[in-house]
Amino acid sequence: CLDGARDAPATKEPPEAVAAAVPSEEQRVRQLSDRPYSLGPNVSDYDARRAAWLAAHPRFPAFVAPERPRVLMVTGSSPRRCTEAEGDHVLLRAFKNKADYCRVHGLDIFYSNAVLDGEMTGFWTKLPLLRALMVAHPETELLWWVDSDAVFTDMLFEPPWGRYAGHNLVLHGWDDEVYGARNWLGANTGSLLLRNCRWSLDLLDAWARMGPRGPVRERYGRVFAEALSNRAAWEADDQSALVYLLATERGRWGDKVFLESSYHLHGFWEEIVGRYEEMRSRWRPGLGDHRWPLVTHFVGCKPCGEPGATYEAAACREGMERALNFADDQILGLYGFQHESLGTTAVRRVRNDTGRPLDADDEEIGRLLHPEFRAAGVNSIRIDELK
Amino acid sequence: CLDGARDAPATKEPPEAVAAAVPSEEQRVRQLSDRPYSLGPNVSDYDARRAAWLAAHPRFPAFVAPERPRVLMVTGSSPRRCTEAEGDHVLLRAFKNKADYCRVHGLDIFYSNAVLDGEMTGFWTKLPLLRALMVAHPETELLWWVDSDAVFTDMLFEPPWGRYAGHNLVLHGWDDEVYGARNWLGANTGSLLLRNCRWSLDLLDAWARMGPRGPVRERYGRVFAEALSNRAAWEADDQSALVYLLATERGRWGDKVFLESSYHLHGFWEEIVGRYEEMRSRWRPGLGDHRWPLVTHFVGCKPCGEPGATYEAAACREGMERALNFADDQILGLYGFQHESLGTTAVRRVRNDTGRPLDADDEEIGRLLHPEFRAAGVNSIRIDELK
Repeated sequence: CLDGARDAPATKEPPEAVAAAVPSEEQRVRQLSDRPYSLGPNVSDYDARRAAWLAAHPRFPAFVAPERPRVLMVTGSSPRRCTEAEGDHVLLRAFKNKADYCRVHGLDIFYSNAVLDGEMTGFWTKLPLLRALMVAHPETELLWWVDSDAVFTDMLFEPPWGRYAGHNLVLHGWDDEVYGARNWLGANTGSLLLRNCRWSLDLLDAWARMGPRGPVRERYGRVFAEALSNRAAWEADDQSALVYLLATERGRWGDKVFLESSYHLHGFWEEIVGRYEEMRSRWRPGLGDHRWPLVTHFVGCKPCGEPGATYEAAACREGMERALNFADDQILGLYGFQHESLGTTAVRRVRNDTGRPLDADDEEIGRLLHPEFRAAGVNSIRIDELK
Repeated sequence: CLDGARDAPATKEPPEAVAAAVPSEEQRVRQLSDRPYSLGPNVSDYDARRAAWLAAHPRFPAFVAPERPRVLMVTGSSPRRCTEAEGDHVLLRAFKNKADYCRVHGLDIFYSNAVLDGEMTGFWTKLPLLRALMVAHPETELLWWVDSDAVFTDMLFEPPWGRYAGHNLVLHGWDDEVYGARNWLGANTGSLLLRNCRWSLDLLDAWARMGPRGPVRERYGRVFAEALSNRAAWEADDQSALVYLLATERGRWGDKVFLESSYHLHGFWEEIVGRYEEMRSRWRPGLGDHRWPLVTHFVGCKPCGEPGATYEAAACREGMERALNFADDQILGLYGFQHESLGTTAVRRVRNDTGRPLDADDEEIGRLLHPEFRAAGVNSIRIDELK
């Protein structure tokens, strides 16, 4: 983005696992000769069934305002504690960060620390989780998966929901990198929007077939190394698998996938974390792009400190601390406080406390304290129901 | 409760600090001869100002349905990582537990890991935090403080909001213990509801005067040891201070305080954690009392493992694991999963996956997935606005 690198990490190493693998010891590992893995039964009339549910439950509309879908953010981490001393503290703060973003934007949030399927371990855990949440919540229009190591750094910016009305999957990336160069770094699955529909269930199922731990995962790793650019033969990861699926079956999936690069749905941390002071002096939140990134994603770092990080642990740690404090300052600012610096836990008061309701007269702050989008839903539903 | 002990812990030791003390090194410690501490300016017309704000912002009503106040849950932990290896992992899971409860009941949640005032450290941090959130959110009718070591164990039960219409502070306790015996264990401040009004600001201010770290906190510790039962002269804690305030100034505060004991707004863990299997076999969620406690509170335990825990660390840890899994099973159950036992992180599928929308046909499960109270607000506002 700054230098044409388009936020893709310089690394060619495997991405971080979302959660530590917790396979059941007794479970037999799927072999290449076995039937392909499936996330669950195929329900061909899923869309009709969901539409019927929504019609029967008018008080739980999938759209809470015109062009404003009901969104469930989904994130999580390992069921087990980190081996690294600071890891869980970083995860705790990263969860607080997402809860803050969801509160001010009126999104629901689900944190998972369970591995729902012993075959879908590591970075693959999100697939069965997204499927389970999707079918149980017909009122949810979009699920927004966000990796544990992705930090919201623009608390005001909100994805342009209306732009995605004709698409079922939105993620950060570029058409020419995915379909042309077949670069496994041409899209990022650390932060993606997925519509609640049969297309998505089908995609999840096709995607998951490449993920079962063991021989299947290893084999697809070799397939990806052949078919994709910039990638060695380490075991299959979910991002490579999605890029592979899109590049090799564009006709089946492509027209419903939106590769977004106009703002940072995912932003590569190394190009961002040194610039927060500059952003503050030059720009204001609400832009979402390189000027004030929506998400700073610690690709190649490991919050939980397992082996395999691409970058030096100290640089990752420092960057995370800065990102979390930069984000938290936008929240603390609503109440008159700020961190003493981006590198410290200590905060200080930066606005006089008058004790009157809504001390914040700043219009922008007011939007975060009492976000219009949250109120908007109430009115639009009222109007709809009057028709 | 089971044996007449009324959930009060057997301990006479100091309660757990909410967050580690992070005093600024340079800050001068308040002396007994200094002016009393104040949380902020006194605003005598606060209620009128808030009413004016609400009248000017009809789209942000303080009541989202008849008798249903807008509630902000407030919790948090230390800005610094735990010294104990498992501490932050427990805090992460305890936050997930509260986020789950808030999602299904449509409550907002705020997690703090900042100490807003260097004088109000330890268990006193919640006072400046509650005040800051209160004045910034006039649309919030009730703030619900919940300690980091309190776990929601009945995901279905909801406080009877209507019962508290005439009160400004609700906490678990008993009139005769607070006003009669003046027992510092006669009420529990680990889980309390506070109305957004001038009375509450005044209470917070009177309460906070006893909390500044140093000589003031030590002196009030001695005062409490004299005035309250069951308490030694260790430094002033917020719970003793509140009981002291109520017992010595009942005329000023008493008629607006609701001491609730009909369900477990706070429930003492030692009487609960061994009974989860029995609860499952005999009762159903939604009761909230000793049969299926709303909250299991790890009073006397330290999630973060600092010195001073009253109970053996292993017993605390095991109890927390069981409480968190017991609670999480009520959430996982919505999606067809359950922990293999209350002592393990592993989960298994317990319901056939049909892949159809809303697999859960169980009416109770449906109430958690698509809670009526969340939809109710929409309608009631509509009706109000039509008048």
